Amino acid sequence: MRLSELAEAIGVDFSGEECEISGLGTLKGAKRNELSFLDNPKYIKDLATTEAAAVLVSPKYADAVPEGTAALVDEEPYLKLALASAFFAPVPMKRSGAKPLIGEGSEIAENVAFGKDVVVGRGVTIMPGCYIGDEVRIDDDTLLYPNVTLYNRTIIGKRCIIHAGTVIGSDGYGFAHTKEGKHVKLHQLGNVVIEDDVEIGANCAIDRGTLDATVIKEGAKLDNLVHVAHNCEIGEHSLITGQVGLSGSTKLGRNVVMGGQSGTAGHLEIGPFATIAARGGVTKSIEGGKVYAGFPLMEHKRWLKLNALLSRLLEKKK
Amino acid sequence: MRLSELAEAIGVDFSGEECEISGLGTLKGAKRNELSFLDNPKYIKDLATTEAAAVLVSPKYADAVPEGTAALVDEEPYLKLALASAFFAPVPMKRSGAKPLIGEGSEIAENVAFGKDVVVGRGVTIMPGCYIGDEVRIDDDTLLYPNVTLYNRTIIGKRCIIHAGTVIGSDGYGFAHTKEGKHVKLHQLGNVVIEDDVEIGANCAIDRGTLDATVIKEGAKLDNLVHVAHNCEIGEHSLITGQVGLSGSTKLGRNVVMGGQSGTAGHLEIGPFATIAARGGVTKSIEGGKVYAGFPLMEHKRWLKLNALLSRLLEKKK
Amino acid sequence: MRLSELAEAIGVDFSGEECEISGLGTLKGAKRNELSFLDNPKYIKDLATTEAAAVLVSPKYADAVPEGTAALVDEEPYLKLALASAFFAPVPMKRSGAKPLIGEGSEIAENVAFGKDVVVGRGVTIMPGCYIGDEVRIDDDTLLYPNVTLYNRTIIGKRCIIHAGTVIGSDGYGFAHTKEGKHVKLHQLGNVVIEDDVEIGANCAIDRGTLDATVIKEGAKLDNLVHVAHNCEIGEHSLITGQVGLSGSTKLGRNVVMGGQSGTAGHLEIGPFATIAARGGVTKSIEGGKVYAGFPLMEHKRWLKLNALLSRLLEKKK
Repeated sequence: MRLSELAEAIGVDFSGEECEISGLGTLKGAKRNELSFLDNPKYIKDLATTEAAAVLVSPKYADAVPEGTAALVDEEPYLKLALASAFFAPVPMKRSGAKPLIGEGSEIAENVAFGKDVVVGRGVTIMPGCYIGDEVRIDDDTLLYPNVTLYNRTIIGKRCIIHAGTVIGSDGYGFAHTKEGKHVKLHQLGNVVIEDDVEIGANCAIDRGTLDATVIKEGAKLDNLVHVAHNCEIGEHSLITGQVGLSGSTKLGRNVVMGGQSGTAGHLEIGPFATIAARGGVTKSIEGGKVYAGFPLMEHKRWLKLNALLSRLLEKKK
Repeated sequence: MRLSELAEAIGVDFSGEECEISGLGTLKGAKRNELSFLDNPKYIKDLATTEAAAVLVSPKYADAVPEGTAALVDEEPYLKLALASAFFAPVPMKRSGAKPLIGEGSEIAENVAFGKDVVVGRGVTIMPGCYIGDEVRIDDDTLLYPNVTLYNRTIIGKRCIIHAGTVIGSDGYGFAHTKEGKHVKLHQLGNVVIEDDVEIGANCAIDRGTLDATVIKEGAKLDNLVHVAHNCEIGEHSLITGQVGLSGSTKLGRNVVMGGQSGTAGHLEIGPFATIAARGGVTKSIEGGKVYAGFPLMEHKRWLKLNALLSRLLEKKK
Repeated sequence: MRLSELAEAIGVDFSGEECEISGLGTLKGAKRNELSFLDNPKYIKDLATTEAAAVLVSPKYADAVPEGTAALVDEEPYLKLALASAFFAPVPMKRSGAKPLIGEGSEIAENVAFGKDVVVGRGVTIMPGCYIGDEVRIDDDTLLYPNVTLYNRTIIGKRCIIHAGTVIGSDGYGFAHTKEGKHVKLHQLGNVVIEDDVEIGANCAIDRGTLDATVIKEGAKLDNLVHVAHNCEIGEHSLITGQVGLSGSTKLGRNVVMGGQSGTAGHLEIGPFATIAARGGVTKSIEGGKVYAGFPLMEHKRWLKLNALLSRLLEKKK
């Protein structure tokens, strides 16, 4: 799509040099023919070095857009990004008679539905009712239990086990809000990458990244009914137990343990070997190697003291 | 079914005028040929004006039943209602060769199963593994990702997106309890109505109304693993994030925001433009336009003060 | 499998009497030709009377293994058990043309997939998209809504209702941890047994037992998005509402009530007729017949006092 056409379609003035836009990217990740944006000032450091063809920015940052990159200036750059995203969203289901490429020794049940250009390795088992979207890759010896849904472009490593009903690659919860209180969908153009030896329980929901990937690293184990929002990264050998919820863009180091029904806010980091007790609610970045509990989160020792203190106060009041 | 037969079947004495009963309704909503009930005294104000053919009531309210409506008097009216509901529950799956009526430009995957008398608009996409129950209506340009289940009589508006694995129209959690501690199912005879431009995440569960409809209004956006109980109403453009749970008959005004893992008790109202922070637990009706947090719920400012106070107390004790 | 071969395969020295091992069992439940283990010292009382052919134990308990039972001595008995479990895990999906045995008057939708040796009673309804695994038993008049997954060897009683998307029999979250921080799967060899008149809501996940069964007893009712971990037991006529999570091996007595989003730690007991208020977090065994709330859990009366106390403290500070 021509940049001038795109600008017109989303209602932004544009008078710079014409070029072809083939997708969207973050300031850091955008390729030479992609449109990027600056909304959260936290990312302004990435503006100077972006390779994007054009960047949506508010007027106050217009001058900081580097040479060679077009500035698309607007009071609501995130809303305009959402409008632009609709032009790059793939069709959810390509109609195609193309057969998946299936490796030796794989067992595919009869009523499994495949999108286009799927590649399945050797020794893979896919049970009835699964849906394997366009351009999905499933590596050797992985097992999908019944009624699993893999959205398009999901990548799954070797020896993974995905339990029944789990959904991988659904759209992240991304909306730009208008002044009238409506919500404009930011089409989710990323995907999900699951590395080797990952196990995911039943009826989980793992959202695709907005522009990049949501990543679950090698050897991580997720229990049932876990919610992983867009752009999260779960470190190697982490243990995520039942009904945990991770908000968007949160990164867990390796061997993080999260107890049942715990959760995190978005855009934070949890250091390696941190343990969050059951029901813990992580509200900001925390260092690794420690045990935490409570909401708002504190060190587990402090949480025990707090409970003891409350008990004493209650006794006194009697 | 004749009223005298129904009364006999559920073990209630009846000696009034005979009539035909064709369904159940609330005091307010019951039609001229329906049976209603009074259990929660909160609804006694609706008794005088009900149009129901008959009303199940306990002896103390028998005299308040208006003329022209038969009183079915029993010590356990709710239990008797549950017994009566079994006679009006539709068959879960009608066997029928009838083809759904599909609008122009719609893409229906091969292994989608349809109930009887389904109507699908134009430009609709239904992906593999979905089940579309009897008498469902899906309006133009709506997209159903794989393995979505729509129970019978679900109504979905235009341009909606329903992510994979989500269940719409399942039975609400409604039981009458016997003196022996058993639970008698109150068959859920309502449905779910989803208005235009609603998006619902993966693996959610939206229960049908008991007698009326559970309603999700225009432009509301739900994240993954959300639980919406029977008879809830979610206002226009509300934002319901991951793992939120709404108990039965709770009504949200427009543009309500509920943070991750928050929840509500049943039978309460949340005013428009209220924001509930993550993990907030709403225990009674609250006015709109404010920010709340904590469990039990309080204003967010107060919750911050409470946490600061607890921190100070902990420091003092050292 | 010969015991000497198994010992070699999992890297444990063995020099006792040879025998054939056909499965794994708990100390209490193991049959004469099964391998058992002692890891949690809590179970040492069961060692003397075990009938297991062999027991994996750490060196300090080696002498306590009774005569007639071989001791497989290792510093990491649980890790070795996990390695051994891989030899007894059934194939997830047997390829077979065998038709299920279906009772009179049952309605099975067209696109239901069956494993091998399934037995379905009379008057059963199975809706589209369900998967019924190998050797499953479904008794008379039970109703499965669409897209339900029953893993192999699940047993379901009479007049049960299972709502759409629910998964029964998925693997429990069981891993042995290596010194390098990796997790070795303990294959889950038990199953799920659901007694008569149980109703389970939409998109729940009920894990199979590790070696024995996860049991849901007669008349229990579960709401939507409930997580039941391996080896749990839910008592007769218990009420488990939306988004509740039960950790492994927890036992509920009869008529327990658990409010929305409540949860339990593992390996504890909840007495009959106990009520846990919404959001309550059960951290140790509790007696029946009382009402509890809060996290950590306390009696509901105390929780009300605690909230009142905190309110007073907040007012004072103003």
